[in-house]
Amino acid sequence: MKLPSQEEFEAPSLSETVPAGHLDSGLGTGPSPDGLSDTGSRELGVSKDPLLFIQLNELLGWPEALEWRETSRWVLFEEKLEVGAGRWSTPHVPTLALPSLYKLRSLLAEGHVLLDCPAQSLLELVEQVTGVELLSPELRGQLQALLMQRPQHHIQSTGIRPCWGSALAREASHDEECPLKEQHQNPLRQKLPPEAEAGVVLAGELGSLAQPLGAFVRLQDPVVLGLLTEVPIPSRFFCLLLGPPMQGRGYHEMGRAASVLLSDPQFQWSARRARSHHDLLAALEAFLEEVTVLPPGRWDPTARIPPPKCLPSQQKRSLSQMREVKDTSVPRGAPAEGRNGHGSHAANPELQRTGRKASWYPSDFLDALHLQCFSAVLYIYMATITNAITFGGLLGDATDGAQGVLESFLGTSVAGATFCLLAGQPLTILSSTGPVLIFERLLYSFSRDHSLDYLPFRLWVGIWVATFCLVLVATEASVLVRYFTRFTEEGFCALISLIFIYDAMDKMLNLAHAYPIQRPSPAIAGSTVYGCLCEFRDPEGNESQWTKTRSKDIGDILSMDLGLINVSLLPPPECVQRGGHPRGPDCHTVPDIAFFSLLLFLTSFLFATALKHIKNSRFFPSVVRKVLGDFSSVLAILLGCGLDAFLGLATPKLLVPREFKPTLSGRGWLVSPFKANPWWLSLAAALPALLLSILIFMDQQITAVILNRAEYRLQKGAGFHLDLFCVAVLMLLTSALGLPWYVSATVISLAHMDSLRKESKACAPGEPPHFLGIREQRLTGLVVFILTGVSIFLAPVLKFIPMPVLYGIFLYMGVTALKSIQFTKRVQLLLMPVKHQPDLLLLRYVPLSRVHLFTAIQLACLGLLWIIKSTPAAIIFPLMLLGLVGVRKVLEWVFSPQELLWLDELMPEEERSIPEKGLEPEHSFSGSDNEDLDLMYHPRAPEINISVN
Amino acid sequence: MKLPSQEEFEAPSLSETVPAGHLDSGLGTGPSPDGLSDTGSRELGVSKDPLLFIQLNELLGWPEALEWRETSRWVLFEEKLEVGAGRWSTPHVPTLALPSLYKLRSLLAEGHVLLDCPAQSLLELVEQVTGVELLSPELRGQLQALLMQRPQHHIQSTGIRPCWGSALAREASHDEECPLKEQHQNPLRQKLPPEAEAGVVLAGELGSLAQPLGAFVRLQDPVVLGLLTEVPIPSRFFCLLLGPPMQGRGYHEMGRAASVLLSDPQFQWSARRARSHHDLLAALEAFLEEVTVLPPGRWDPTARIPPPKCLPSQQKRSLSQMREVKDTSVPRGAPAEGRNGHGSHAANPELQRTGRKASWYPSDFLDALHLQCFSAVLYIYMATITNAITFGGLLGDATDGAQGVLESFLGTSVAGATFCLLAGQPLTILSSTGPVLIFERLLYSFSRDHSLDYLPFRLWVGIWVATFCLVLVATEASVLVRYFTRFTEEGFCALISLIFIYDAMDKMLNLAHAYPIQRPSPAIAGSTVYGCLCEFRDPEGNESQWTKTRSKDIGDILSMDLGLINVSLLPPPECVQRGGHPRGPDCHTVPDIAFFSLLLFLTSFLFATALKHIKNSRFFPSVVRKVLGDFSSVLAILLGCGLDAFLGLATPKLLVPREFKPTLSGRGWLVSPFKANPWWLSLAAALPALLLSILIFMDQQITAVILNRAEYRLQKGAGFHLDLFCVAVLMLLTSALGLPWYVSATVISLAHMDSLRKESKACAPGEPPHFLGIREQRLTGLVVFILTGVSIFLAPVLKFIPMPVLYGIFLYMGVTALKSIQFTKRVQLLLMPVKHQPDLLLLRYVPLSRVHLFTAIQLACLGLLWIIKSTPAAIIFPLMLLGLVGVRKVLEWVFSPQELLWLDELMPEEERSIPEKGLEPEHSFSGSDNEDLDLMYHPRAPEINISVN
Repeated sequence: MKLPSQEEFEAPSLSETVPAGHLDSGLGTGPSPDGLSDTGSRELGVSKDPLLFIQLNELLGWPEALEWRETSRWVLFEEKLEVGAGRWSTPHVPTLALPSLYKLRSLLAEGHVLLDCPAQSLLELVEQVTGVELLSPELRGQLQALLMQRPQHHIQSTGIRPCWGSALAREASHDEECPLKEQHQNPLRQKLPPEAEAGVVLAGELGSLAQPLGAFVRLQDPVVLGLLTEVPIPSRFFCLLLGPPMQGRGYHEMGRAASVLLSDPQFQWSARRARSHHDLLAALEAFLEEVTVLPPGRWDPTARIPPPKCLPSQQKRSLSQMREVKDTSVPRGAPAEGRNGHGSHAANPELQRTGRKASWYPSDFLDALHLQCFSAVLYIYMATITNAITFGGLLGDATDGAQGVLESFLGTSVAGATFCLLAGQPLTILSSTGPVLIFERLLYSFSRDHSLDYLPFRLWVGIWVATFCLVLVATEASVLVRYFTRFTEEGFCALISLIFIYDAMDKMLNLAHAYPIQRPSPAIAGSTVYGCLCEFRDPEGNESQWTKTRSKDIGDILSMDLGLINVSLLPPPECVQRGGHPRGPDCHTVPDIAFFSLLLFLTSFLFATALKHIKNSRFFPSVVRKVLGDFSSVLAILLGCGLDAFLGLATPKLLVPREFKPTLSGRGWLVSPFKANPWWLSLAAALPALLLSILIFMDQQITAVILNRAEYRLQKGAGFHLDLFCVAVLMLLTSALGLPWYVSATVISLAHMDSLRKESKACAPGEPPHFLGIREQRLTGLVVFILTGVSIFLAPVLKFIPMPVLYGIFLYMGVTALKSIQFTKRVQLLLMPVKHQPDLLLLRYVPLSRVHLFTAIQLACLGLLWIIKSTPAAIIFPLMLLGLVGVRKVLEWVFSPQELLWLDELMPEEERSIPEKGLEPEHSFSGSDNEDLDLMYHPRAPEINISVN
Repeated sequence: MKLPSQEEFEAPSLSETVPAGHLDSGLGTGPSPDGLSDTGSRELGVSKDPLLFIQLNELLGWPEALEWRETSRWVLFEEKLEVGAGRWSTPHVPTLALPSLYKLRSLLAEGHVLLDCPAQSLLELVEQVTGVELLSPELRGQLQALLMQRPQHHIQSTGIRPCWGSALAREASHDEECPLKEQHQNPLRQKLPPEAEAGVVLAGELGSLAQPLGAFVRLQDPVVLGLLTEVPIPSRFFCLLLGPPMQGRGYHEMGRAASVLLSDPQFQWSARRARSHHDLLAALEAFLEEVTVLPPGRWDPTARIPPPKCLPSQQKRSLSQMREVKDTSVPRGAPAEGRNGHGSHAANPELQRTGRKASWYPSDFLDALHLQCFSAVLYIYMATITNAITFGGLLGDATDGAQGVLESFLGTSVAGATFCLLAGQPLTILSSTGPVLIFERLLYSFSRDHSLDYLPFRLWVGIWVATFCLVLVATEASVLVRYFTRFTEEGFCALISLIFIYDAMDKMLNLAHAYPIQRPSPAIAGSTVYGCLCEFRDPEGNESQWTKTRSKDIGDILSMDLGLINVSLLPPPECVQRGGHPRGPDCHTVPDIAFFSLLLFLTSFLFATALKHIKNSRFFPSVVRKVLGDFSSVLAILLGCGLDAFLGLATPKLLVPREFKPTLSGRGWLVSPFKANPWWLSLAAALPALLLSILIFMDQQITAVILNRAEYRLQKGAGFHLDLFCVAVLMLLTSALGLPWYVSATVISLAHMDSLRKESKACAPGEPPHFLGIREQRLTGLVVFILTGVSIFLAPVLKFIPMPVLYGIFLYMGVTALKSIQFTKRVQLLLMPVKHQPDLLLLRYVPLSRVHLFTAIQLACLGLLWIIKSTPAAIIFPLMLLGLVGVRKVLEWVFSPQELLWLDELMPEEERSIPEKGLEPEHSFSGSDNEDLDLMYHPRAPEINISVN
């Protein structure tokens, strides 16, 4: 087997040698497996070759009714025409039989290769191709007529019925050189980029030929070959494979082989640059060198392989060839960096001071002039108000009404809009977040238990937090973020998720105390008593006869006349209020509310979960699925409200103020710093503030790092220090106004960015759309928060939302966040027998016992955190979270750096400790398309924060 | 490329030429895709070659510390040693690089091939292998010592920690020729069949060699080569591939190529029979001819492909080779028959009279002496009593207590045991089934509406049905079954499932009427009134003052003294019973019961569904999963009962008799044929009986056909006529005793058969266990029904089962049955955009519009049946079901036979109408391993009947 000849690599300058990657996998599924693909090619200065559409036309119907019919097509993957069903198959990885490649090779070796053919039309091309010596003149004429025949295409029109080319093959005329309307209307045309070129392979059996006829043509300038291709794009390559009838489906397979070959990026690259017959054959040999072979006994050759989630890196192939030629060195560490997405935080240029934010400011508004921004605003607005409602409700619960939904709306609006106007990364959405809410609850309990005036105390905490944060900004402490490895993030996230789940359940069960269930009272004389009377003392102050009678003869009260005076049917609370005594077995039950609340709780949880699943299901058009998935929690809340309104039961509802005034009665909008609290409390507040600062810092900065990952290809840079500065200032403002505290919310910000993705429209069947970047601007966020502010007047509507529904949504958020972290997957591994464990890359390189040990340590840390949270020492839990970093540091003595690289990521010192060649080549992420990708390239987005969706 | 030389195929007699298929896919996933595999090979009289275990030992550590280490192994699929993780990878389809195969070929071509080597030990073998001229004596000595080194194996011990061979390579001694304890304890040993042989491939780089050294040895008699293989089984093949260090991982890949080659059944077969060097190379060429090639640009060569659900048929490969040699013809129709499993019913030999059942009778008891039968009894017993309880409860509902749970138990026991003792197919489990239950309900409504005495009327219906059935038996009408195609079966099944779902929901909602929910009464003076008083008239017959006061001044009643006399707190029903009047806004509400019932209903439904899903999840050991899955409905019932008991609410419970007497009070066990009904009713009963006969016939015979499908490999034959005879006689008996009617229940019978599967224990990693047959006997069924009879005394326990739980289980059964039919999948297609539709074989061959038309017709039929069922004409619905056969017949004019073959199956006449070569070759079921198999080879088991699980 011959390696590609050196000349073809040396002839063009190095800057041209690397074939371009229109193969970068979309970023939606995580960081690109091949961290080099983009930067690498950019650095090497490669010009992209146009995309090639390949069509295989087969000659069918020999000998009676010869006709050309398109039977398969390729852009990246193969689509076969299902003749019976009259549709294109699902795109699949093409598989070939080895002999067909060899037959093709020998046919090309003997055949007619025309490189840079100057033909300008199909007719000219046909004349050139048939201009071989071995053809007799009449055969040549026959062949030319045959080649000019109009082929049958299966063009899937936008309607339901496909439109076929005319069934009768007509003689070629010059009129037919112009593409038809149906060709132009072909939906495939829209998918292909405008610069795309076509390659046409014609194959078949022709009895009149005595020996095989092979021709390969590269056109000098691509030409639209009339009706030859189903889409009217200029053709670059033309390949003819004809011959006398042979056993089996020889020419069909050969045609497929030629098409697959042409669709291979490496072969394409070589074929575009080939200067001789020889170069072409060498490229075929190079292709053969690289093919994957499946043994016949273990794989059915007719099975269709679905497209892999990410295509193999073509960079590697070309680089390996280049290395053979020139031994170009590639940085070894690159693949490992590709895995972590943001790689080493230290290298992050955004953590350096640049001051170049201001120059982008005008474009931050101009760039928003796009329809997509409108839908992004709608989506994020819905998510934001849902968030504001749920957090507001919980905040009201947590602080006994010191803050509430109104404050939540107002604060979200003011803080969010300010941040969007001033921050370094205006794509960030500020929100109340789980950790801060929990801290606020602890702070409130503390101040209630010590009879402090909450809001002034809170103001001082806020002042201190702002101070600390400003110090952190001044000292550029954000670089410390790189010590928060996945271990810490997961511990943090898992704890928060569990607290959400626990709280949702706990509140739900508490409703059963508030609205007790009627249990049957002991049966008396075979029947049950029920009901409740409100009994008043008679004017003499004696109890009514009823109770007297009852205590006298319990078995008799049912059948005898009671002779009651002074009773009413008032419900117990009002009865007590009016000076009566509720009497009867049912006085402490509130029928139906508890179970109905439970039903609402379960319904909203399950409905939101189900809607989220629809997004990845096969049902409904993608627009519908996207809407249902994106608005899952909003829809679940609406369903819950609808059910509640339909039955009209007195379930506990969201408490909303009827007027625009602080929820806590009797306070103005400005919190006075000194009121009932002693003066020294202003200083003492520094202690909880220190803890809160840690929380704010972790929450804010980890989110910022995630949002500014390289994989999102942000052009305008980030602003770690500026953002923290903004958060600190807003902290001061919200504390002074008694509004909730706000930091960046990871999940909702990611949803914001996701809704602003720029993607290439034209994409090959089976290939995910290419990610182009994010529409970076300030306007969408600003509009969202202005709308949120306006929504304060929604209060009359919000009071119809039952609390159990909100608890259900919170359960959903907690479960969703918990499910998304790798830690959960490793906990699941504990329950799986070895045989059934998924083929995770992690498990290939780390012994199972070590994986389990790591998981067990995380579980232990989580347990410890949970215990601390439940004791009176709960307020120090931010410190304990920080303690996770220490535990992680200790783990360096327990696990090897290699293991930690797989289980976690490396801390700055460890990165240095790994020798440069520490990772064996097969440790790099050549990856499979299995689940391991999900795990290893896991977008760590939802690991940190709890928010909508 | 060279085709295999003819000699090697002509030398052995034809009866030996076909390699054996230890590759038959298990039958659990449906009929074998290759209908020929078993019968074909048996007919051709092939002797099976033993299974080959292949192990690749690589020479690592050059030059410092040379050692052999096992790195991969193959039985059917490749398992790679994950060095980092210290475990075997999941089995996967091996992939090779093409150059490695070529390098292997050239090495073998130049190398040393020893066929039928007489070596009796490793030492002898090593001497023979190293006896090549080109080696210098000292190199030979060095090589011999190296080959005698003890290799390191990774033996996964049964405990958690793997045990490694000693880390230090020791010198070979004669003691080490005996396998070690750890080799014997290797769990792989148990998986391999006793006659298995080993093939060892040794590959690596050895710097002292100047040129590559290749050797291939086939041992004359397989010999245990000491410590060379990880399992102490005799080795048949030995392959050595050594050479000077080369670029890349050349020898590793070559070693893998040799191993994959040896693991290929076709190559194995050739290598076992090769008589020269040349034959071996020819076999390698033949292998190359058949490989599947994946293009490098579209498939990552390092991706691991999971084992396909069914292996490609090796028959085809050998047959195609044979055809090339001798042009042996194979019946064309065979693949199509493979699809339908039972193929044409007409060809079914069981429908012929044989009379050979009796000879099996003694073995029907002796064959049951196996532990497996015990667990089968337990499982089927649980399923049967759950069935008896649920159907008994529904029957009690349907007939207003004319029959009930007691009758259900008694009847199941008597009928089932009798059937198991006498029937032709004792694996069948008799049960109440959905269709019969619905008919019984209609019959009861009819007789109630016309004031007939139900049980005597029913007796006459039973007498007539038995008569009709006996006529059907006498005329051998069971052959008509072949007109019931999938269209009819699905219509039948879908209707029944929908009725189940509708009934479950309807009954659940009716509970809300029986136990009304308390809705808030209009608020009076800002507060709500609730409660209910029982008011008696005072001795003078006047109403009490309360109501008078109320009617006078409604706004005042809450705050004023009422001065009531004559009231009690009795619940409304008892109040009325005792002559009082319930008064108050809450008198018509029964708190909590409705919502709690709904919760129980949903809980049992969701819990049963979730448990069923666990069976196919990755969690828990397979035993636990199997138990949870198999007992899902039992566990769901238990959970529901537990919840109900925990809260102790007065939910509606299952009504069970406290004594052993008929549920209907005042009747003896024998139903008298003449009582209140007029004499002519005995004759008129023939009309409903005709309808019921159609139902019974359909239900019984379709089930029987499914149970006796060829894929279950039953040895003792079926008894269509005998079974129908038994059902008819039991019909008479149960009617006379007023017990429910019984026919074969598909799903529970299939579960019975499934629990009696005989499977091969030894199976290669990644390969499903082989199905050997069913433990056919009468004892398990008999014991199950005896136990069911004994369970009548469980009545005191059964009365704790709440009805909503049973409704939930019925919803679950309905949904499960509906989900299992292809019709449902086609309805789902209606909701899927074309792009997202699964790659079903069906859709490859039938235009989507035709598929949708077929589905729409089925939906229309279903709608019509539903309407008929809901009108007073409901009693004729069995006739309408039969009408489906007519509709299906009409469809022959709408759809082509090809389309019907894909969408349905063919009726006897149509089968004749398709020309013999009607199916194009690619229409045969070469299939892919995708979802289409699920659809096309769908085990039609759960399509017919509704039963437990």
